[in-house]
Amino acid sequence: MSDDLINWFDKSQAVFTSLKEIMFSTFTERMQRLHDMPKKACNILWWPFTQHKFVPQENVTVIDSRCGENFAVHKVQSFDLISQQFDACASWWTQGPDASLQIELARDMGYTAARYGHVMFPENVYEPALELAELLLEGVGKEWASRVYFSDNGSTAVEIALKMAFRKFLFDNEVLLDLTNASMVERCIDLKVIALRGSYHGDTLGAMEAQAPSPYTGFLQQPWYKGRGLFLDPPTVCMHNGLWKLYLPVKMQTEKFELEYVSFSSRDEIFKSNRDGSGLAGCYRSFISQELLLNRDSSGFSHIAALIIEPVIQAAGGMQMVDPLFQRILVRECQSRKIPVIFDEVFTGFWRLGTESSAELLCCQPDISCFAKLMTGGIIPLAATLASDAVFKAFVGDSKLKALLHGHSYSAHAMGCMAAVKSIKWFKDCTTNVNLIGESRLLQELWDSELVCQISLHPAVHRVVALGTLCAIELQAEGSNVGYASMYASSLLKKLREDGIYMRPLGNVIYVMCGPCTSTQVCRSILEKIFAAIQESSQVSGLATCVVEK
Amino acid sequence: MSDDLINWFDKSQAVFTSLKEIMFSTFTERMQRLHDMPKKACNILWWPFTQHKFVPQENVTVIDSRCGENFAVHKVQSFDLISQQFDACASWWTQGPDASLQIELARDMGYTAARYGHVMFPENVYEPALELAELLLEGVGKEWASRVYFSDNGSTAVEIALKMAFRKFLFDNEVLLDLTNASMVERCIDLKVIALRGSYHGDTLGAMEAQAPSPYTGFLQQPWYKGRGLFLDPPTVCMHNGLWKLYLPVKMQTEKFELEYVSFSSRDEIFKSNRDGSGLAGCYRSFISQELLLNRDSSGFSHIAALIIEPVIQAAGGMQMVDPLFQRILVRECQSRKIPVIFDEVFTGFWRLGTESSAELLCCQPDISCFAKLMTGGIIPLAATLASDAVFKAFVGDSKLKALLHGHSYSAHAMGCMAAVKSIKWFKDCTTNVNLIGESRLLQELWDSELVCQISLHPAVHRVVALGTLCAIELQAEGSNVGYASMYASSLLKKLREDGIYMRPLGNVIYVMCGPCTSTQVCRSILEKIFAAIQESSQVSGLATCVVEK
Repeated sequence: MSDDLINWFDKSQAVFTSLKEIMFSTFTERMQRLHDMPKKACNILWWPFTQHKFVPQENVTVIDSRCGENFAVHKVQSFDLISQQFDACASWWTQGPDASLQIELARDMGYTAARYGHVMFPENVYEPALELAELLLEGVGKEWASRVYFSDNGSTAVEIALKMAFRKFLFDNEVLLDLTNASMVERCIDLKVIALRGSYHGDTLGAMEAQAPSPYTGFLQQPWYKGRGLFLDPPTVCMHNGLWKLYLPVKMQTEKFELEYVSFSSRDEIFKSNRDGSGLAGCYRSFISQELLLNRDSSGFSHIAALIIEPVIQAAGGMQMVDPLFQRILVRECQSRKIPVIFDEVFTGFWRLGTESSAELLCCQPDISCFAKLMTGGIIPLAATLASDAVFKAFVGDSKLKALLHGHSYSAHAMGCMAAVKSIKWFKDCTTNVNLIGESRLLQELWDSELVCQISLHPAVHRVVALGTLCAIELQAEGSNVGYASMYASSLLKKLREDGIYMRPLGNVIYVMCGPCTSTQVCRSILEKIFAAIQESSQVSGLATCVVEK
Repeated sequence: MSDDLINWFDKSQAVFTSLKEIMFSTFTERMQRLHDMPKKACNILWWPFTQHKFVPQENVTVIDSRCGENFAVHKVQSFDLISQQFDACASWWTQGPDASLQIELARDMGYTAARYGHVMFPENVYEPALELAELLLEGVGKEWASRVYFSDNGSTAVEIALKMAFRKFLFDNEVLLDLTNASMVERCIDLKVIALRGSYHGDTLGAMEAQAPSPYTGFLQQPWYKGRGLFLDPPTVCMHNGLWKLYLPVKMQTEKFELEYVSFSSRDEIFKSNRDGSGLAGCYRSFISQELLLNRDSSGFSHIAALIIEPVIQAAGGMQMVDPLFQRILVRECQSRKIPVIFDEVFTGFWRLGTESSAELLCCQPDISCFAKLMTGGIIPLAATLASDAVFKAFVGDSKLKALLHGHSYSAHAMGCMAAVKSIKWFKDCTTNVNLIGESRLLQELWDSELVCQISLHPAVHRVVALGTLCAIELQAEGSNVGYASMYASSLLKKLREDGIYMRPLGNVIYVMCGPCTSTQVCRSILEKIFAAIQESSQVSGLATCVVEK
């Protein structure tokens, strides 16, 4: 028996050797591939928002996989290793699942691809699209929206919203009744939106036109851009040296407003609706009325055909928190003049700011609202533009040409809808989302208030905004170190990557973002590391003064 | 023992009864849901390109699932049933998988969601994105493209392409060297594209501006649209009464062109490069030169900063086939004047027209090219804009502001990239795609030539274009029955749905589209049914003359 075994080993040796060789060469190939990826990436990929000249291959992150909120990153040191990095960019503000939701979503994606692949949407209905529409209307669209229009991303959702708003405006102004009136049509080609400076709504031309001039809209980016808006500087709020304060733009710093800034006893006070009766509210109201009045032509016709705002937080514009009182009054002033109101909730929607819709924080409702990013839990693109019944009715008529002729091939694709259905249900269920306060749809405070306050007191820190899943920190900087193109934060962020936190700055603003289900323990530990890195950087290299701009 | 069993049954009866009740009530609920779906859909969905007034709930198709090329449609007749319908719209031109690829994709989607979810793209690399970029550059970008820029859909891919082209144009015209020269910058705000009338590039404003006025771009849709192009009427080709013929636009119908139309001995003849030396080619060349000359300003500066075309087939514009000789000459004339050339291959790419890229059919290469739809096999949104090295270099510089600052949250999302990698490999592998001719990357003829010819001879048919996976049929119509808003084909298509074919018209143009792997037997049987329906409709209701416009 023993001889037999030895004989068998002898005879099989070639097989074992060959198996070993195959395994070894496969492993070697895989390792080689991982080693080569940064160089290949630098040679053939074209990353968005990236100056390739500034990205040497050693700065490229090789992502082997992700689990919940963490990337598994391949690194070459003395040996190959896979290390965890917290995805503090929330993969560009989309990321939502913890590890358990990711597993559930994976199962659903396989199922949905097998059951539906993608099926065509117009005049058809299938379960994932219908269920998602129902969930949206019961949730983020509750009490005001009656229709759901699907597209692929925030930018297209905004393009659709603008088309809806303009049609509603033309309908209310009875332009639609007389399309043969050439002078009326001519006048309406110059329609404008009101928007707030620093807001961002996407990179397709229509969405760009609704934004004030910024690095994203410059001549170098798209020579066709001209900015078709009345762009107002908004009053902002933030925590500065441990206190929540109001900052008024220059145009409002008149004696009427009495104070250059106001302090608040707490963040909650900022959102209280009893501010509506304050002197400041009156000042906001007359300021807005005045601006609207100035934008009428000689016959009294207003070219302002829509208001578009990011409720509460202007994200890409540097994570600025706008005074919700100002936004609420702006919404009401517009609606009272039949100017349709669009909320761009692409960033703020779905618990990003602690509430299902950030309209709840503003205590008012739009006519049209845009959602994307976190809607699918952050795994796959899908967007929705919600509209009120009055908006929808402006497209109903006796010709196909009156319908909204805007579409993308994958409108309401089954996999996106299924991912959204699963994620929204998961986020709003207190058995799966431990961050919900009781049976409410509100998240508990995720960022330790004491720690946030301490960070804001550090001399290297100019301001902090912590709200919902977001904690943004503007570093104290001057001159060319301020603004989108600044490289000011790069050495700090490099250090944080070594500490297991993957961040990307908006100029001199850094931020950390978690999912709606991320535990407060994880949030605390991440924020502690960031605070430590700020402290260390400012001691070692004098962050606040000495970082050389590249 | 037998008594024991009877006792057990007696004791367990309540359990069985309750199980039966649960199963019965679950089934009843499911059936009720399917019954209610059309009504709910009509109440809360807002379909793209759809006049809701024309869609009563009995016209809504309830799609229970799909398998390969077929929908499983729920119908209520005397009893509930699920019936198969061939997805002849190819779910709006995206659909590619046969049943076996769909299963493979489902497996990959589950795996990719579990492994990556979505991970952030800029400055990062992960296997699906890198592998897809490699496959694109070896395939559709072979010999000309060096970079891949990812986005979500055809419209965003075109917006990106336009930004690339304009920058390249500014770079070549040395405008970038002197941005302080205000008059130069001012002049460049009026940049235009050349495009062909009837082309369609998407519904976001930038993509719209590159299209000639059409129902999709009207004042009712987006008052901001003005059409920033030199729009040329293209010469078209099609099969008419059994012969492939050329149709010249009015502007070319001069004595120079000698003939009002030319016939071809076969479709292949149309694509032959020996046509470059013909008299017609000379006429095209001088016509194009003349048009370009007229678009210079007094100082000789040309405002034409890009050419954008759909190679060979203008899809949404009514499935028009443009004379490839004209497009080839247009491309060459532009490139010789340093006008960057964009191919919009969103519809035509990935074997839609029988070749991996339809640039192969034109025998020339672009500077920038846009892909989407079929790229992921048709299950999930993803787009790519490919660019030459010269285009990429116009964005490299010493400031982030010179980088291309255009992005969408799900840029290069892992699931989309993985679906595309699997699909492209599957389509180009002759062991998985039986339609490939030998080891080539060309599809065999999918539509029976004899049958196509017969259809074109029918008096109710005005023209036919059969190429690759597409067979388009323009019905003979007059007056308001012609064009996008026409309801002319609706009764014919209703009949075909009863025959198991789901179609949607482009006005009086109907079409059938299959996947790159669909068998010729299936194609033949579908086309036979369509021919039979045309014959029957024209006999019974006098299709060509008597259908009342709704």
